[in-house]
Amino acid sequence: MPADAGRSAAPSHLYLPELPAAGAVLTLPDADARYLARVVRAKPGEEFTATDGRGAVARLALVGERGGEHGSEARVVSIEHVARLRESVVLCGAPEGERGDWLVEKLAELGVAVLQPIDTGRATWNGSERRTERWQRLAVAALRQSLSAHRLEIRPPRPVEEAVAALPAGPRWVANVAGPWAAGTPAPAAGACGLAIGPAPGFTPDEREQLAAAGFLPIRLAECRLRTETACLALASWWAGAGATRPPHLDGSDVRT
Amino acid sequence: MPADAGRSAAPSHLYLPELPAAGAVLTLPDADARYLARVVRAKPGEEFTATDGRGAVARLALVGERGGEHGSEARVVSIEHVARLRESVVLCGAPEGERGDWLVEKLAELGVAVLQPIDTGRATWNGSERRTERWQRLAVAALRQSLSAHRLEIRPPRPVEEAVAALPAGPRWVANVAGPWAAGTPAPAAGACGLAIGPAPGFTPDEREQLAAAGFLPIRLAECRLRTETACLALASWWAGAGATRPPHLDGSDVRT
Repeated sequence: MPADAGRSAAPSHLYLPELPAAGAVLTLPDADARYLARVVRAKPGEEFTATDGRGAVARLALVGERGGEHGSEARVVSIEHVARLRESVVLCGAPEGERGDWLVEKLAELGVAVLQPIDTGRATWNGSERRTERWQRLAVAALRQSLSAHRLEIRPPRPVEEAVAALPAGPRWVANVAGPWAAGTPAPAAGACGLAIGPAPGFTPDEREQLAAAGFLPIRLAECRLRTETACLALASWWAGAGATRPPHLDGSDVRT
Repeated sequence: MPADAGRSAAPSHLYLPELPAAGAVLTLPDADARYLARVVRAKPGEEFTATDGRGAVARLALVGERGGEHGSEARVVSIEHVARLRESVVLCGAPEGERGDWLVEKLAELGVAVLQPIDTGRATWNGSERRTERWQRLAVAALRQSLSAHRLEIRPPRPVEEAVAALPAGPRWVANVAGPWAAGTPAPAAGACGLAIGPAPGFTPDEREQLAAAGFLPIRLAECRLRTETACLALASWWAGAGATRPPHLDGSDVRT
């Protein structure tokens, strides 16, 4: 056993969609192996964590016996499942320009389960395959950065009506200056909920009625007008600030928030 | 009087640091005159709003008598003062890279009064004159976008101790995973408060003690670890969601949030 056995290479937290059972040895993707070797400078025996983005979090140890060098294999030391006690689905209209990029990053950090872009009467998302790939990369980077066990799921844009019909049961809110202040509205501490934000030019009156009929309650986020992506982030922050318990794999780690 | 007299060119909302009294005619800065002419296509007699960024909000009418054309002058139709009922000062450690840019934009939209960048033991802001100018432009753009009466004040970076000493009296919070959940912590609906966020590598233990001694209470914003700028925005959103009354100049306007 190498001298560094058990020493932690944390806070390295990888995204490995296919995590095997405890005891198994897996071959790390090239990018992850390079990251551990060159950025973290992890040595054989050192441990790090990885998640499949669907709640499984594993501790892994780098495999390699020649001191100083290491290969691209890791052994699963232990694996646990972090249950999602709360889940939010964000229905967001199109913001201006490329503001969707950091929206993805921030929603992922805040622990949102699903980003469902919605195409509305006044604005549609103009997608591209390149953007979809970039968003997936941003979601994974945020998962790693935030030491999360769950990956933000980003769905292709769809019309409001379809997106609303696909929502899980649970309370729903829509950002609207006519609503009561967020601070006076308790966010759910458990279960699923839906959060909707209009596109840059706003929802149409029809869409507002549609949302109201589907149980969306207005909620007010700030004194003045917010850009779409700012309102989206403020609404997700409101939800995130009513969390449940701390995931066990984060216990004891020195994290800022 | 032109045919369009009184017709509103809203939501044009300009930033004019020197607003004269009602009845006075002022010469618009070139950029604003061009914006009204080319983007808004405002006609003589049409009205728009402007603020000095310190609470004064004026309705102005474009001056010009030759139908279709207009000059760069505007008459102050009325002016009112929007009192700031709540005020937050944000002490923020250095985030990674150029993430400060959108931090400025978002804090301005959310209605934060002052952004005080703080230099800490583990990270300092590396400023430049160009960045300072860019931030001022972003703060003005956000003021216009959010139809605000108050401009975000951005101070030069200073050490934690100095920044804390300069804070107005009032409650104080620091983003910290060890704190109680934001949802269970009422944000002040009036008066001044201080909000602190550590830099990307976190506060030092000494700095944490310093903040605790100065009355900063820990507050938890999300389940997982947040980047500095995300935590900053989530904390500002928590504060913004406990607003007071709606500024009179926004009454009746169709704003998203």
